[in-house]
Amino acid sequence: MQFFFIFACVKIYKYYTKITMAKELTSRQENYSQWYNDLVTKADLAENSAVRGCMVIKPYGYAIWEFMHDALDKMFKDTGHVNAYFPLFIPKSFFSKEASHVEGFAKECAVVTHYRLKNNPNGSGVVVDPEAKLEEELIVRPTSETIIWDTYRNWIKSYRDLPILVNQWANVVRWEMRTRLFLRTAEFLWQEGHTAHATKEEAMAEARKMLDVYSEFAEKYMALPVIRGIKSANERFAGAEETFCIEAMMQDGKALQAGTSHFLAQNFAKAFDVKFLNKENKLEYVWATSWGVSTRLMGALIMAHSDDNGLVLPPKIAPIEVVIVPIYKTDEQRETVANYCNELKKRLENRRMRVKFDDRDTQKPGFKFAEWELKGVPVRIAAGPRDVENNSVEIARRDTLEKNTITIDNIEDYITNLLDEIQNNIYQKALDFRQSRTVKADTWEEFKEQIENSMFVYAHWDGTPETEQKIKEETKATIRCIPLDDDFEDGKCIYSGQPSKRRVIFARAY
Amino acid sequence: MQFFFIFACVKIYKYYTKITMAKELTSRQENYSQWYNDLVTKADLAENSAVRGCMVIKPYGYAIWEFMHDALDKMFKDTGHVNAYFPLFIPKSFFSKEASHVEGFAKECAVVTHYRLKNNPNGSGVVVDPEAKLEEELIVRPTSETIIWDTYRNWIKSYRDLPILVNQWANVVRWEMRTRLFLRTAEFLWQEGHTAHATKEEAMAEARKMLDVYSEFAEKYMALPVIRGIKSANERFAGAEETFCIEAMMQDGKALQAGTSHFLAQNFAKAFDVKFLNKENKLEYVWATSWGVSTRLMGALIMAHSDDNGLVLPPKIAPIEVVIVPIYKTDEQRETVANYCNELKKRLENRRMRVKFDDRDTQKPGFKFAEWELKGVPVRIAAGPRDVENNSVEIARRDTLEKNTITIDNIEDYITNLLDEIQNNIYQKALDFRQSRTVKADTWEEFKEQIENSMFVYAHWDGTPETEQKIKEETKATIRCIPLDDDFEDGKCIYSGQPSKRRVIFARAY
Repeated sequence: MQFFFIFACVKIYKYYTKITMAKELTSRQENYSQWYNDLVTKADLAENSAVRGCMVIKPYGYAIWEFMHDALDKMFKDTGHVNAYFPLFIPKSFFSKEASHVEGFAKECAVVTHYRLKNNPNGSGVVVDPEAKLEEELIVRPTSETIIWDTYRNWIKSYRDLPILVNQWANVVRWEMRTRLFLRTAEFLWQEGHTAHATKEEAMAEARKMLDVYSEFAEKYMALPVIRGIKSANERFAGAEETFCIEAMMQDGKALQAGTSHFLAQNFAKAFDVKFLNKENKLEYVWATSWGVSTRLMGALIMAHSDDNGLVLPPKIAPIEVVIVPIYKTDEQRETVANYCNELKKRLENRRMRVKFDDRDTQKPGFKFAEWELKGVPVRIAAGPRDVENNSVEIARRDTLEKNTITIDNIEDYITNLLDEIQNNIYQKALDFRQSRTVKADTWEEFKEQIENSMFVYAHWDGTPETEQKIKEETKATIRCIPLDDDFEDGKCIYSGQPSKRRVIFARAY
Repeated sequence: MQFFFIFACVKIYKYYTKITMAKELTSRQENYSQWYNDLVTKADLAENSAVRGCMVIKPYGYAIWEFMHDALDKMFKDTGHVNAYFPLFIPKSFFSKEASHVEGFAKECAVVTHYRLKNNPNGSGVVVDPEAKLEEELIVRPTSETIIWDTYRNWIKSYRDLPILVNQWANVVRWEMRTRLFLRTAEFLWQEGHTAHATKEEAMAEARKMLDVYSEFAEKYMALPVIRGIKSANERFAGAEETFCIEAMMQDGKALQAGTSHFLAQNFAKAFDVKFLNKENKLEYVWATSWGVSTRLMGALIMAHSDDNGLVLPPKIAPIEVVIVPIYKTDEQRETVANYCNELKKRLENRRMRVKFDDRDTQKPGFKFAEWELKGVPVRIAAGPRDVENNSVEIARRDTLEKNTITIDNIEDYITNLLDEIQNNIYQKALDFRQSRTVKADTWEEFKEQIENSMFVYAHWDGTPETEQKIKEETKATIRCIPLDDDFEDGKCIYSGQPSKRRVIFARAY
C-alpha cells in the first residue's frame, strides 16, 4: 500500500515535471538561449528591472552569489588580502590619464552631470535643476584602477609601504547596448583586487597567484573546469601589459571568460605619479596588478551544469543542499511524517548541512518535487508513513535524477558522501563534455568546420593581431587564450601559414 | 635586569605615546570635532577622496564594518530575512509617485543624464557625447523604496506571496553640501530592509521587531547603549507613517541617530499599485516597512568610546582582539621571544581569538604600543626574555589602560574573560556617561541651560510641529525621540505651556 502510494507519487511527480517543465522551460535543444533566459527567471535567480540593462538579483540567485562571495573572500584573505572601499564616482579627467584605458573603458558609461532636481514649474513631477550642474562630470565606475591609483599616491612613499594587497566588493556600470541577465548587464556586482608592488617579479607573481585562486575556486566550488591562459593583445584589458584568464565551456560549446587577472606593469603608477623610495633610496614607479570576477559567474554556473528540468547546483554553493518533502494523506499521517522529517533535518543540520523541510500544506508533493528540481537542490529526501514504519527514506539526486530507497540508520554519512559524489560528478561531467568538444585543427577548412560545430579548437596562429582579426571576421571565433599548461609545439598558422611556436584555443564566446 | 628592561620599555612607550599622540591627535577637550577627524584618518579608518563628499574606507576601517555587517546579516537571517539586489539607478519619474517621498529625497541627488563619452575633438581628453542623452534621467539611489515597490508589483499577487522579507546591502548617494567622514558623506554603504505584509498589524510588528534587532546589535556588539523611540512628525522618514529609531549619546553630549525602522503603511503600495488577493479573495493594498543602518554607525562607534590616545574598540567587532608585541635586544633574544609569542598566539587562536603577532623588526616596542593603542586593539600582550624564563606576560587593557603581569598557565581563560570584561566595561562606561548627562527640565530657562550644557533633556512637549520648530530655532535642539520605554506622565509643554501626556527627549544632534 505504502509502496503503491510512493510509486503513485513518483508518477504524479513525473506527470507534474512533464507538464510544468514542458510548459515552462524551453529545452536546450529547442533553443539554448531561450532555455537560459527561462531558467534564470523561472528558477527565481534574477529578472530585468524597470531600468534598461539593470537586473534585479532575486533572493535565491543572491543566496548563490553570497556563497560564491564568501568562498572567494576567504581565499583572498587566506592569501593575505584585505578589503577596502573606494568611491562609486570617478572624475571624468581621470580616464584620460592612462591612454589605452580610456579607449577601452571610458566610452560607454553612465555620466553624472547634475546634483539636484527641483519641482517642475508646470507642477508635474520633478526636473533636473539646470543651476546644479557639476563643474566636472563624474563617471559611475566601470572599473576602479584610476580612482584607486590616484588614492595609492598618498599611501605609498617607501618600499616599507609595499605591497598593498587590497580587494573591493562593489557594483560597477558599463553601458552595454545588448544585455542578458548575469552575462552582460549595465550594472553588475563584482570584486576587483588592486595590488601595488616594489618589483616587476612580485607583481607578475601576484597576477599569476590570483589566476590560480580563481581556477581553484571555479573548479572546487563551482565544479567548473577551466583552462588557465594568457589573452592575446586584442583581448587584453585596457591598460594591462598581460592579461591572464580562466575560460570555461558552456553546454552549447561556446566559451565564457570566467575571471581575469592583469599584470599592469607601471602603467597606472606612471599615469597617476605613484613612486616609492626603494631599498637603495631611489625613486621608482610602483608595479601593479588588478583582478576580478563578477556576477557573470552566475551565468557560467547556470549554463555549464543545468538541464531541461532546471538548475543543477554544485552542493558547495547551493543555498539548500537537501530538501525534505513529506508524503501524507491524512492529518494524522501529516503529523507523524512531520516529526520523522524534523528529526532527520536536525540530524543533518548537526553535520552543518543546509536543509529545508518543505512542509507547505498548500502544494502537492509532485509540485514540490518539480519546484526543487527547477531550483537545483542537489539532494531531495521524500518520506511517507511507510518510511516511518520502515525507518527508510527515498533519496533523489538532482545531477543524475536517480532515486534510491535507504534506511536512515547512517543517513548523515550517506548524505555527506552523496553530496561529495554529486560535487565531483558535476565537475567530471562538465570536464568530459569539454574534452569531447575539444579538437585540434591543422587546415583552414577543418578549422572552420570545427568552429561551426561549436568546438574548442586548438590551432596554430602566427601571433599577429591582424590574423586574429581576420579569423574573427570570417568565423566569429576569437582566441580564448594561449593556454598556460600546454607544451610548445612547432607548426604553421591555420590562416596565414606563417610559422608558430604553439597552439592557441579558438572558440566562439559569450 | 629583565624587569628593568620592561620598565624601560614602558617608559619608552609612554614617551612615544606622548610625543606621538600629542603631536598627532588633538585632545577631545581641546577640539572635539578635530579630535574625531584626526582619529578617523590617523587610525587608518577612512579618508576623503578626490571626489567631493565621497570617502575611501581604508582596510582597517572596512574590517570593522565587515564585522558589523556579518553580525547584522546573521541577525537579519535569524529573523527570517533574505538578501537581494536592486538597481543602482532609479528613473526620475519614480520619485514623483509618492508625494512626501519626493520632497524628502529626490532633491539633492546625483543625476545621470548621458551614457557615453567621446574623444574631445580638440584632442585633449574626453567629453560627454551630446548625442548620448538619456530620454529619462536616472537618479543614483538615495534609498530604494521606489524601485523596490515597482518590482514588488510583479512579485505579489496573493496573500500566499506574503510576507516578503528582503534586505539589501548597497551603496547610496545623497548630495550633502557639508560632509564629514562616516557621519555624513555623499556616498555611503548601508543595508535597507524592505518588507511587504498582508496586514497593518504584521507590518507594524515587523517595524518594531527590526528596531529591537538594531538596539540589540548596538548594545551587544557595538557596546553602544541606545534609547528606542518614535520620531516626531518633523523628523519622520519621507513616506513613512511612523518612524522608530535608536538614539545614542556621543562623548560631547550630542545625540546620534544610529538606526531607523519605518512603518510605511500602504503609501508605497498605493504609489506603485501593489495589490494582493487576501484570504477573502478581495484585492487590497500591501502593507510595508523599511529599515536601515549605515556606515554612519562607524562614526557612532568612534565617538562613543574612543579617548585621547585613539580608538577604543569593543572586542566583538575588533578586527584584532589581541596584539602580541615582542621585547628583545639581541638576535638570540628575538628568536627565543618569537617562539614564545608564536606559541601564545597559537593557543589563543585555538580559542578562535583574532590575534596579531607584531614581529616587525623595523619598529621599536614603544612605537608599536602607541600604534595599537591608536588602533584600539582591546588587549595587548608584551613578552620579553625574562617573561620566557618566568612563564609570564604583561597584559595591557585598552579600555582602562591598566597593565598587569600574569603567568601564562591559564592564559586562554584569562584573555577570554578579559575580553568579556572589556566588552561589558565599554558598554557600562558609555551608559554611565549618558545617565550622568541626562536630566529632566520643567522650565524653559532650565531647558535652555541644560541644552547648552549638552545634555539629553527629558521635557514635556505639546505635540505640535510648530512648537518643535520654534524650540529648534531658539536652542538648536531637536526631539530625538518619544521614548518607547518610558511611562506616561501628565505635564505642561516646556515652551507653550500646553498640556502634555509624556516627556520626550531633546538634544542637539549629529
